[in-house]
Amino acid sequence: MLSEANRSDNAVPLYEKVAAEIAGLIDQGTFRVGDRVPSIRQLSHRFDVSINTVMQAYALMEDRRLIEARPQSGYYVRARVPEIIEPEVPVQQTIVPATVTISDICQQVVRNMMNRDLLPLGNAIPHPRHLPVDKLNRMLASSSRRFPEQSISYHMAPGSERLRIQIAKRSLMAGISAGPDEVLITSGCVEAVLLALRATCKSGDTIAVESPFYFNFLQLIAELGLKALEIPATPREGISIEALSYAIEQNPVKACLLVPNFSNPLGSLMPDERKRELVELLARHEIPLIEDDIYGDLTFGNERPAAVKSFDRKGLVIYCSSFSKTLAPGYRVGWAIAGRYQSTMERLKMMVNLATSSPPQLAIAEFLATGGYDHHLRTIRRIYAANLSQMADAVARYFPPGTAMTRPAGGFILWVELPESIDAIQLYHQALRKGISIAPGPLFSLSGKYRNHIRLSSALWDEKVEQGIKTLGELAHGLQQ
Amino acid sequence: MLSEANRSDNAVPLYEKVAAEIAGLIDQGTFRVGDRVPSIRQLSHRFDVSINTVMQAYALMEDRRLIEARPQSGYYVRARVPEIIEPEVPVQQTIVPATVTISDICQQVVRNMMNRDLLPLGNAIPHPRHLPVDKLNRMLASSSRRFPEQSISYHMAPGSERLRIQIAKRSLMAGISAGPDEVLITSGCVEAVLLALRATCKSGDTIAVESPFYFNFLQLIAELGLKALEIPATPREGISIEALSYAIEQNPVKACLLVPNFSNPLGSLMPDERKRELVELLARHEIPLIEDDIYGDLTFGNERPAAVKSFDRKGLVIYCSSFSKTLAPGYRVGWAIAGRYQSTMERLKMMVNLATSSPPQLAIAEFLATGGYDHHLRTIRRIYAANLSQMADAVARYFPPGTAMTRPAGGFILWVELPESIDAIQLYHQALRKGISIAPGPLFSLSGKYRNHIRLSSALWDEKVEQGIKTLGELAHGLQQ
Repeated sequence: MLSEANRSDNAVPLYEKVAAEIAGLIDQGTFRVGDRVPSIRQLSHRFDVSINTVMQAYALMEDRRLIEARPQSGYYVRARVPEIIEPEVPVQQTIVPATVTISDICQQVVRNMMNRDLLPLGNAIPHPRHLPVDKLNRMLASSSRRFPEQSISYHMAPGSERLRIQIAKRSLMAGISAGPDEVLITSGCVEAVLLALRATCKSGDTIAVESPFYFNFLQLIAELGLKALEIPATPREGISIEALSYAIEQNPVKACLLVPNFSNPLGSLMPDERKRELVELLARHEIPLIEDDIYGDLTFGNERPAAVKSFDRKGLVIYCSSFSKTLAPGYRVGWAIAGRYQSTMERLKMMVNLATSSPPQLAIAEFLATGGYDHHLRTIRRIYAANLSQMADAVARYFPPGTAMTRPAGGFILWVELPESIDAIQLYHQALRKGISIAPGPLFSLSGKYRNHIRLSSALWDEKVEQGIKTLGELAHGLQQ
Repeated sequence: MLSEANRSDNAVPLYEKVAAEIAGLIDQGTFRVGDRVPSIRQLSHRFDVSINTVMQAYALMEDRRLIEARPQSGYYVRARVPEIIEPEVPVQQTIVPATVTISDICQQVVRNMMNRDLLPLGNAIPHPRHLPVDKLNRMLASSSRRFPEQSISYHMAPGSERLRIQIAKRSLMAGISAGPDEVLITSGCVEAVLLALRATCKSGDTIAVESPFYFNFLQLIAELGLKALEIPATPREGISIEALSYAIEQNPVKACLLVPNFSNPLGSLMPDERKRELVELLARHEIPLIEDDIYGDLTFGNERPAAVKSFDRKGLVIYCSSFSKTLAPGYRVGWAIAGRYQSTMERLKMMVNLATSSPPQLAIAEFLATGGYDHHLRTIRRIYAANLSQMADAVARYFPPGTAMTRPAGGFILWVELPESIDAIQLYHQALRKGISIAPGPLFSLSGKYRNHIRLSSALWDEKVEQGIKTLGELAHGLQQ
């Protein structure tokens, strides 16, 4: 059917309307230079107009040099006349209006990662340079060759058995004894956490989280109609067990959502003794813990830290993780080991999207079985430890006096506290205009905290990144009052 | 950490507990014959026990012939002594207890599809025999070779641009004019519908659906805390516009969710004139329509039916579809063209799992650009038309007199009405015991309808399927009173 804009005006002949519609699709990029546009017969049927009208429309578009006829073949989009270069628009210096919400900025920060012109310090995403790209792509090809039908068919929840076996084996390194049937494959760790929240809470319930906390989870909690109870955490020990204990006494906490190993954004590593206390506290109150362990494999030490799940005696801990930080973010392969919530989460998984995509599951199963995952981990741990240290040095060198920052023992993110007078949202907007993406502190709280904090990613370290840190430092100096 | 069962008993020596834990993981299949078990040092660290304890545990397991040491290499799971064959257990003939709910049976039906020993008449899934398996697998390999980094990296919402361009082009065949930026890639059509429901409704709202209706969507509606208003539909025209109009006057309908082209399970094809009336009715009330067009490409006619979206003037129709019925169910690639709800749905997509898996997006983009999708469609349309007709003939031949059924003009599912006295749930359980999976009618309503109906899939037709229909007919005869 013709779209509304083109239908309404009765003064315009029908063939011009058809021409305008197709020209619009060329403008939008649905049809590009060299593409064939629909045949006259197809278009006549689709737009419910006569063959003659389409012929007139295509003739008009030929006249306007938008399309060209090729004998025996149809009509094609022509190359455009080179466009006139526009004069450079001066960079806008005003601060964005106050109507921009934290949720809008969250979306912008996530979107910034798609913009290849920006220096990517705003998102906690590994750089392809440090991922086994070629090996994974070879395994993607070989596993689909070995299991051609499995590759295109559903792997309904709980997911590919080959992959679940490999994950169950590796879980022992985090101290978790699990059979393959206790593992549920999800579309990334976020989905595992979403299913865990749905399995343990209903709209209106209160969830205890550490503060500051990963912004996407805060947004998710809000979107599900849940309340986030933000409990203070320290860079050394993570969430305060004492504060959590007090909060539980005072509030009807339905679940607890934490990143105990190399938390986001603090980078805290909770000591084993604290993990044990946490499990005991929550067990006394029968409160489920949703544990996100996505950074656990990225320790800088020799031994991978234990999961809180390894101390769980009552099946109350829902362990969630993924391969997005270590192997392939775009594969979207995560998992949960959900204890007493396993069957509920399986049911929910089937309901939200039936299954996780098959080819990446098969490829990762093969990588884990034969690809030297441990060797790869040793390599990237060394790289990330070096990157983080170099970024911290640069921040110390270029940022204003009074700046403080974390020194995480794993992962690749750095949490920076700027002098009190610097507004992180202003710094975010100014940095963006210099081509640098950062994550401003206010994203990491729903209750207005961290006004003068920023999170930086050191997933990559090179001269451009160092230059970026220097620029950020200069901007911070400029914002200081 | 050692698991609870193994920790609690103080009478058992620690090394026996460690041995029991690892033996348990061998039993569960985490470690299989020939696999290496963790090194003594690793296990000592993980279980927080001494090296000596692990050595004793492994010695015990060697004695029990569970593992064997290989010099310079570690300990491996041994081949088991052949198991004693158990006597055959007689097939249980009792009907399952009444505590089994419709939701439980839904899950069972979905799970049945993973059971390769069952004749798959219960799920609406294409058979790999009719899918371009080898071509897709080649394109999966070649696209990851051509775009190695893109293949492992995020394609954040709205998703891969290459794929969105191809989808926008093809949408014209359904009468939809759309630019690539108006397309949102999702993890299958179910996810597109889920995001559409979340974008248009909140807990407690009422959704109008056709009746009978696809059970997974009914479950999803219930899970989201929404109410389904079931509006009668006919096999010839789909939902009754008159009944819907009346229902809207009487109820605060917040959205309408339909499968207008070859609905599930009726197979109805709504005539264009009815589609136009539907759009006008909903536009008058500003009610969004969520349109699932997943079967639209599987018409038996020459022309693909138009989407309801093609009549939309107000951006109120959220078009949802996927490649699960035509190319690759396991790829989990679907999409939405969401009109005025586009940006809300993009935001929700990022929140639930950030992005859809990359390799399948790239492979399908390549297939659409170069793979002869239209040629493939012509082939499977012919096959499905033949399959459905043969299955209908067999049902007519083998089922009791008084059986009625639909004659859809597309897709591969058949809706069968059995004589009044036959209980479809009983038939479902009896069929399962004969190795046949069907979808009983009561799944397709939340309000207790379709007690004597079943849905059959003719995605495959061969002698075994014909034999299965014959067996079903015999069972139906037996259940008749």
